[in-house]
Amino acid sequence: MSNPRSDRVRAVRALSRRAVRVKQGLFLADGPQSVREAVAHRPDVVRDVYVTADAVARHPTLVETALGAGVPVHEVTDEVLTAMGDGQLSVAPQGLLAVCGLLEASLDDVLARQPRLLCVLTNVRDPGNAGTVIRGADAAGADAVVLSAGSVDVFGPKVVRSTAGSLFHLPVVVGLEIEAILEQVGRAGLRLLAADGSGRHVLGQVDLSGPHAWVMGNEAWGLDEQVRERCDDVVRVPIHGLAESLNLAMAATICLYASASAQQG
Amino acid sequence: MSNPRSDRVRAVRALSRRAVRVKQGLFLADGPQSVREAVAHRPDVVRDVYVTADAVARHPTLVETALGAGVPVHEVTDEVLTAMGDGQLSVAPQGLLAVCGLLEASLDDVLARQPRLLCVLTNVRDPGNAGTVIRGADAAGADAVVLSAGSVDVFGPKVVRSTAGSLFHLPVVVGLEIEAILEQVGRAGLRLLAADGSGRHVLGQVDLSGPHAWVMGNEAWGLDEQVRERCDDVVRVPIHGLAESLNLAMAATICLYASASAQQG
Repeated sequence: MSNPRSDRVRAVRALSRRAVRVKQGLFLADGPQSVREAVAHRPDVVRDVYVTADAVARHPTLVETALGAGVPVHEVTDEVLTAMGDGQLSVAPQGLLAVCGLLEASLDDVLARQPRLLCVLTNVRDPGNAGTVIRGADAAGADAVVLSAGSVDVFGPKVVRSTAGSLFHLPVVVGLEIEAILEQVGRAGLRLLAADGSGRHVLGQVDLSGPHAWVMGNEAWGLDEQVRERCDDVVRVPIHGLAESLNLAMAATICLYASASAQQG
Repeated sequence: MSNPRSDRVRAVRALSRRAVRVKQGLFLADGPQSVREAVAHRPDVVRDVYVTADAVARHPTLVETALGAGVPVHEVTDEVLTAMGDGQLSVAPQGLLAVCGLLEASLDDVLARQPRLLCVLTNVRDPGNAGTVIRGADAAGADAVVLSAGSVDVFGPKVVRSTAGSLFHLPVVVGLEIEAILEQVGRAGLRLLAADGSGRHVLGQVDLSGPHAWVMGNEAWGLDEQVRERCDDVVRVPIHGLAESLNLAMAATICLYASASAQQG
């Protein structure tokens, strides 16, 4: 493919916009890490992989994996890939782009598998933070990440990129109201732990060996009072130095790793 | 001050460039969090605070603290502040900017105070990562952060902003070669722990109760072999899920918090 003004290029480029993603049920994963994890772990959702000749030479295993999984791979020019990225993706230097079907995990399915560790995000707005939490949850072995309605769109390019492929590793549930999430997760027998600087309990003094869900709030204003009150405990990460707080992604990763260590350790 | 083309405005704006910072021995801290921590903890290095009338009204305590510490505070127009920021700083909406003398901590001084926990960064290039590690080290109660020559400039606007004020809380040592740092820190009796995915030891199985320094490498390629070999142990953060790795800031924060917990817990 070499015509950057073709209908197909236009259709791919349009996926940079949320409204188009929702309407089409598709999103973009760019760069070798995301595309590799997509074809390795979720080839069922990958519709097309676009790759430059250079990138084919640099990533032969990735291309083989995609083809072996029945994913159509299209060689394109740099110009075509740049046009597909619409300036929002760093595809040109990396030479790889995948069009994927929206990953739709249901909370019912997640809970039916008797999870031991969940991460619930409410009102998270910063794409980098949300993506990094998903990556951290994956590394900590969490069973799923749940983002409440009103959180950032996890299928936007910045979130996808900052998950570093983890979006294709574990179920990510979106679109439910926080009240419904807490109700369902609590009913499934998981302890609800709100992570908040106001917590009476300190991480390290809380028993994390049983099944539980960490509930994390907005970057700037933390958790709403009614959410904190709905949880079984409010837990704070200790601050030993003079820092006022940790950022959301760091606090979440520390909490999730403490859980992993207690559950697996 | 209302003339955005004055010599003073030009002089402040020039500090967006590293060469000018080095020559003048000055850097910029923008936004309420950084400026507040600067005047509260290191008024000795703050040369001037520039603030809009709006921001004076929003942050009366900050202005009082600055004046009480003998720091000159200048009320300026939005236009002046925007011109000072040179498009690299988000000063206009926040209305606050401080010009500070470069914070120069010496490794000798740091080691003379018998530190128990240090964080050494080598070849770290991403400003957000470096700043977030400094913030995490502060929160974990580390005694200092040391960045080897060849790392990102910690006095650049993006690093300063992502430290969220922590740059003014703990000593940050810059400019030494990594070999010299490891030699000096090791000689001072701190165990050198390389954090690297190739580690034989797993975090959680390593005794962290004694004085030690975490040595962390570049975001993309990790630690050089000669650096790993110079350390007493190479330790990896366990990956429980399918994620390939954690990002530098997350890995550093997990390691530093594990140390804090072992040393203070």
